[in-house]
Amino acid sequence: MELYTYHRSVAAHRVRIVLNIKGLSCEYRFVDIAGDKLQRYQFRALNPQGLAPVLVDEGHVITQSMAIMEYLEERWPTRAVLPKDIPGRARVRALAQLFISDIQPLHNLRVLRYLRKQHGQDDAQVAQWSAHWIAEGLAAVEHLLGSSTETGAYCHGDHPTLADACLVPEVHEAIEQGVDLSEFPLVRQVYATCMTLAAFQAAAPETQRDASGLPETSWV
Amino acid sequence: MELYTYHRSVAAHRVRIVLNIKGLSCEYRFVDIAGDKLQRYQFRALNPQGLAPVLVDEGHVITQSMAIMEYLEERWPTRAVLPKDIPGRARVRALAQLFISDIQPLHNLRVLRYLRKQHGQDDAQVAQWSAHWIAEGLAAVEHLLGSSTETGAYCHGDHPTLADACLVPEVHEAIEQGVDLSEFPLVRQVYATCMTLAAFQAAAPETQRDASGLPETSWV
Repeated sequence: MELYTYHRSVAAHRVRIVLNIKGLSCEYRFVDIAGDKLQRYQFRALNPQGLAPVLVDEGHVITQSMAIMEYLEERWPTRAVLPKDIPGRARVRALAQLFISDIQPLHNLRVLRYLRKQHGQDDAQVAQWSAHWIAEGLAAVEHLLGSSTETGAYCHGDHPTLADACLVPEVHEAIEQGVDLSEFPLVRQVYATCMTLAAFQAAAPETQRDASGLPETSWV
Repeated sequence: MELYTYHRSVAAHRVRIVLNIKGLSCEYRFVDIAGDKLQRYQFRALNPQGLAPVLVDEGHVITQSMAIMEYLEERWPTRAVLPKDIPGRARVRALAQLFISDIQPLHNLRVLRYLRKQHGQDDAQVAQWSAHWIAEGLAAVEHLLGSSTETGAYCHGDHPTLADACLVPEVHEAIEQGVDLSEFPLVRQVYATCMTLAAFQAAAPETQRDASGLPETSWV
């Protein structure tokens, strides 16, 4: 099994966490989405959108982080990242989806580039745009965590789920961007709890082999 | 079971389609997300994000269209909207997610409003922004449909799935916005096939009771 990953991709970060929680063996192919033009060109043969992550397993090419995580859960149900009860699964998926569809799409690289180039927004305006959507999304997450008795040490109960695998990369990104997290104590608490686990530590962007310069194991 | 819906919401449209495919009985509560301030305020008690759709079933409040659709599939597996095989399920979810996280978040109402108010973009610039992301996303869908032997009369094989429940609302929106669809023949073909089915026809925005003026059955 191979994961095409990029250390700064929030979406790839989610998948690395789930792979680690499940203890699955997976070869990483590092793809420099932000930089190297040749790599990006070649990568589009695998994923025409040119977006990470992509999972390749037994000849199946799977795109979209949520589809990949659901795939991993169905193929290897042990060390589950979804609860067993149907309403609980819905709650976890809704939290995950809030990160996946309401926050991250608004600050990903292609969108910020487009804002800059096509809409003439300068660096400060682009940073403000990004911070706005992250803060608005995290406020909603904070509310959802605070208003449910199902919130535990993690987003849902006392085991990490897909929701945590989505929360941690987004909070990491928020910290990188200097977003003020003081009004989100529950979000910060879940983040801190997750970061005590090796599965989350090993998935962090700064610990990836492609985080510094050209990785030896780049896939091209 | 109750669905909080708004006729112009692309995300609520998806859920209406799945409810219809499964033949489920569901009471619609119409919420005027774009207009009525009192309704929006009251609606936030149910969903702090103020976004449609919201499903309420046996006391469970479920947000996020993808989480709702997965919930419906798990609760009522008959007339399945996901295939049985794990790789097929991943393909359908990846296609669905492309609409849910790569296209729709970039042109929803709150984002277009923010572009206008905070970033000083005029109507033409906002329309161009929206059309750009729809066209870029549909180009990726067209490629994915054209490059897989699993594409059939529908996005995946010969039965409608979650992917079609996401494709149809987005294409409907593209048509409303005047996006040129001439380069997406497979997308148009799947759309046309879906629209021959009563389940899709009955879910269309223009056939909703809240599509013209104040609905008699508004939930406030």
